[in-house]
Amino acid sequence: MAKITKRLCTLVLRLMAVGATLLAAIVMVTSHQRTSIFGISFEVKYNHTPAFQYFVIANAIATVYGFLVIFLPSESQLWRLVVALDVVITVLLSTSISAALAIGTLGKNGNSYAGWLPICGQVPKYCDQVKGALISSFVGLIIYVLLLLYAIHTVLDPLLLRKT
Amino acid sequence: MAKITKRLCTLVLRLMAVGATLLAAIVMVTSHQRTSIFGISFEVKYNHTPAFQYFVIANAIATVYGFLVIFLPSESQLWRLVVALDVVITVLLSTSISAALAIGTLGKNGNSYAGWLPICGQVPKYCDQVKGALISSFVGLIIYVLLLLYAIHTVLDPLLLRKT
Repeated sequence: MAKITKRLCTLVLRLMAVGATLLAAIVMVTSHQRTSIFGISFEVKYNHTPAFQYFVIANAIATVYGFLVIFLPSESQLWRLVVALDVVITVLLSTSISAALAIGTLGKNGNSYAGWLPICGQVPKYCDQVKGALISSFVGLIIYVLLLLYAIHTVLDPLLLRKT
Repeated sequence: MAKITKRLCTLVLRLMAVGATLLAAIVMVTSHQRTSIFGISFEVKYNHTPAFQYFVIANAIATVYGFLVIFLPSESQLWRLVVALDVVITVLLSTSISAALAIGTLGKNGNSYAGWLPICGQVPKYCDQVKGALISSFVGLIIYVLLLLYAIHTVLDPLLLRKT
């Protein structure tokens, strides 16, 4: 009974992670805004920034991986790989979030030393969408960290019990 | 005998990781260059950029942690925590590298859509030092990934052998 509850918990967590990373990728891909300065119209899009492209790719990979793991039968030998792959996905998501966050913060605050002006004043809708995508992806990341902590706990505990 | 060899291997790897992250932090902290454009003299330093500050903090934490783990006695109960902490350090290092890389790439190539000009043409020495720090930290990251893969291998194998 406790085993089924645990399996159900991890299933729900994995479904939530898939939802969060999918939402993050969609919100980032659809983020664009047309604005005009001094009569010149121009458009900002996620694919103008390498860090945001990487963010979309990382979240898409996490979504596909999370989706596939849900359908993995519980007696499969592949589960030995899932802990290792969860680590890879956690690193992938956290690097993509931190790169996008570095560029997003620059867009919001600028960097006077480098002469880079903030752009969020001109394109507030675009910046809000990027922020939303970052928050959604961060939720996905937290779920993967929880899954990892749980895996480390269940894998390490039997080893320690055997030792003592 | 094989056990001693393995312990020696992980010790050497951990020493190399401490060296790499320490070097990365030092190279980044000492990176600065004075230049003048149109007769106005100004200085670029790592602490003008939040992503580089985070990079230095992350590498300093990884160095202190790696140093402490080296002196952990092999029969200590704290080893159960080391695998989990290795994951934390791996995530910390990879996020700091990706944030610094995002800003470093921007400094090198600029972003014409956002009106951010490349600055490495004016401060080549500073950019080279940032690049060196990134490479050194990346070496440290690879070592932590190797240590993690090894830990996953040794922790998971006995479990699988017990099952079959």
